[in-house]
Amino acid sequence: MEVVQVLHMNGGVGETSYAKNSLLQQKVITMTKPITEDAITKLYCSKYPDEIAIADLGCSSGPNTFFLVSELLKVVDSVRQKIGQKSPEYQVFLNDLPGNDFNTIFRSLSDFQNKLRKQLGPGNGPCFFTGVPGSFYGRLFRKNSLHFVHSSYSLHWLSQVPQGLESNKRNIYMASTSPPDVLKAYYVQFQKNFSLFLKCRSEELVDGGRMVLTLMGRRSDDPSSKECCYFWELLAIALSDMLVEGLIEEEKLNSFNIPMYTPSPAEVKYEVVKEGSFNIDRLEVTEVNWNAYQDETDLSDAFKDGGYNVAKCIRAVAEPLLASHFGEGILDEVFRRYREIISDRVSKEKNEFVNVTVSLIKA
Amino acid sequence: MEVVQVLHMNGGVGETSYAKNSLLQQKVITMTKPITEDAITKLYCSKYPDEIAIADLGCSSGPNTFFLVSELLKVVDSVRQKIGQKSPEYQVFLNDLPGNDFNTIFRSLSDFQNKLRKQLGPGNGPCFFTGVPGSFYGRLFRKNSLHFVHSSYSLHWLSQVPQGLESNKRNIYMASTSPPDVLKAYYVQFQKNFSLFLKCRSEELVDGGRMVLTLMGRRSDDPSSKECCYFWELLAIALSDMLVEGLIEEEKLNSFNIPMYTPSPAEVKYEVVKEGSFNIDRLEVTEVNWNAYQDETDLSDAFKDGGYNVAKCIRAVAEPLLASHFGEGILDEVFRRYREIISDRVSKEKNEFVNVTVSLIKA
Repeated sequence: MEVVQVLHMNGGVGETSYAKNSLLQQKVITMTKPITEDAITKLYCSKYPDEIAIADLGCSSGPNTFFLVSELLKVVDSVRQKIGQKSPEYQVFLNDLPGNDFNTIFRSLSDFQNKLRKQLGPGNGPCFFTGVPGSFYGRLFRKNSLHFVHSSYSLHWLSQVPQGLESNKRNIYMASTSPPDVLKAYYVQFQKNFSLFLKCRSEELVDGGRMVLTLMGRRSDDPSSKECCYFWELLAIALSDMLVEGLIEEEKLNSFNIPMYTPSPAEVKYEVVKEGSFNIDRLEVTEVNWNAYQDETDLSDAFKDGGYNVAKCIRAVAEPLLASHFGEGILDEVFRRYREIISDRVSKEKNEFVNVTVSLIKA
Repeated sequence: MEVVQVLHMNGGVGETSYAKNSLLQQKVITMTKPITEDAITKLYCSKYPDEIAIADLGCSSGPNTFFLVSELLKVVDSVRQKIGQKSPEYQVFLNDLPGNDFNTIFRSLSDFQNKLRKQLGPGNGPCFFTGVPGSFYGRLFRKNSLHFVHSSYSLHWLSQVPQGLESNKRNIYMASTSPPDVLKAYYVQFQKNFSLFLKCRSEELVDGGRMVLTLMGRRSDDPSSKECCYFWELLAIALSDMLVEGLIEEEKLNSFNIPMYTPSPAEVKYEVVKEGSFNIDRLEVTEVNWNAYQDETDLSDAFKDGGYNVAKCIRAVAEPLLASHFGEGILDEVFRRYREIISDRVSKEKNEFVNVTVSLIKA
């Protein structure tokens, strides 16, 4: 039973889940669907197993919790119907931190299962759901008990704020003005976390088992590149403005850093190869516009406001961190300013979140 | 994916867990400990498995949720240390209805695991916890995925109120004045539920897997025997008094029946033999005093009041049922009267809950 210090677990206020903006997250799952579909199809067709145990790590508790699962089951069911195979039984493990709202998931399970049954039609095997509370930077499942692991928009969260960020004053994440030792401290923490994650999952997956991971990341080799750091830099501007106006303390701002790392595909590949338990099947980069609602029609003006949407999306993940560090009192003001800053930038330039997706096979 | 109508699932108010009085429940677990210890020891010593998957069905969310698990793990750890075996890995499935408060369980898991680690000492294997929402009168787990199933004080709850109780007027459970067709309707529902339970578990347990079940029951062959029906008859008296005083409606009282069945050892044995998947290792009857606090010293006067304790214990399980049928308004008055009636009886006679425990091996 390893003990790992877990993101959000110490602050009390922030003891929550790997919270995700639901529309953005759904867009990412949809965008990476070809990779996920490909992986689950190959898994199923390699052995036509009687049972498939699927784990979704960092499942959260919103409408997306079941979205991925239903997509996976539809793919398997479609393939097995085409080739006339009997349906496997499914075991689905939904994992998130202990602060996640599992009650809400469990109470909506019955409706989801009824809906799924109708979508899949007759002959589909039973699907058993369980909730698994705990950090994925530690073992969560028995040895050789999983066939398929999925994680989307969770693994860029580190288990803790890296050590040695004292010189990262006024920045809250890696930034173009961060000294090299700050960039290194972030990278070291990512390497430690990501390799531990791979090691734990390699023990839990059966041989030939598959894993599809999507992290917020970057294309560039530069970890302080605008493509992955800009939305935090803009939040740092909002906080710095409030510091100048005396609304927050300098010491507080200097000691605040986001426990996240947005890796490049090369960095992901390097850790996978170094850890050695997995072969890489696919490694791909996708982008999703900052304003996930941009392509939607029939939205109210508030939703069409790019600043509103990005600020809302970032607020969902940053609020617990800010609240436990600065106190709840500043939140509305920070995000009012942040929304203004973002609105200005969104009107002048196109910005995207970069996603790195890797599809792995246990060697 | 079978659909089973589940106790408490339809009323809204009552959608809760197989709620249990914590001290009574703890006494029952302690009292039946020799049987449980015997079963887990035999299971472990038959194969010295690398992993043990344990399911606790109807786990609730109070202090007893982890009590049973820690007892089981201590037994295995003690045996494996004596014989110098490497510790197995444990997978613990905690099951209850979707309305159960799993969030509370999950948030206290970390403290429990730290405590357990200290109790077991070095060398003990990891223990992975998952929550499994759903009715145990249906499949909950993959085929052949469990080694040990435990259920205490949950299986006497039926999946629904039996059909055809129209003639059970003024009674709320089987009673000495219940017509034979009422007793039969209750028994038929029990048989249906219990045999379905056995069938589902037989699919989920590995060959040689074990199951220890404790139900509230009776020694007598008469299903309306005082030993199992008396505490409901006294609640019916409280309700009848309120009917006479115009506080509840006759039609409401006539249509209220408790969805429970308290079987005899012979009835349990009959279902096990008929279903055919399990051999009976042990079948035993124990008693626990109505007033579970009776043997405790250093209690305040309120706790020494037998009426208070039994009424509190029954209220915990009956409240959701009464509330969804009669409305919340009557609860305080019903239980004030119930407590008075019980106090009177407790002072005049000794009453006990009868427990039937069966230890089974999958054939």
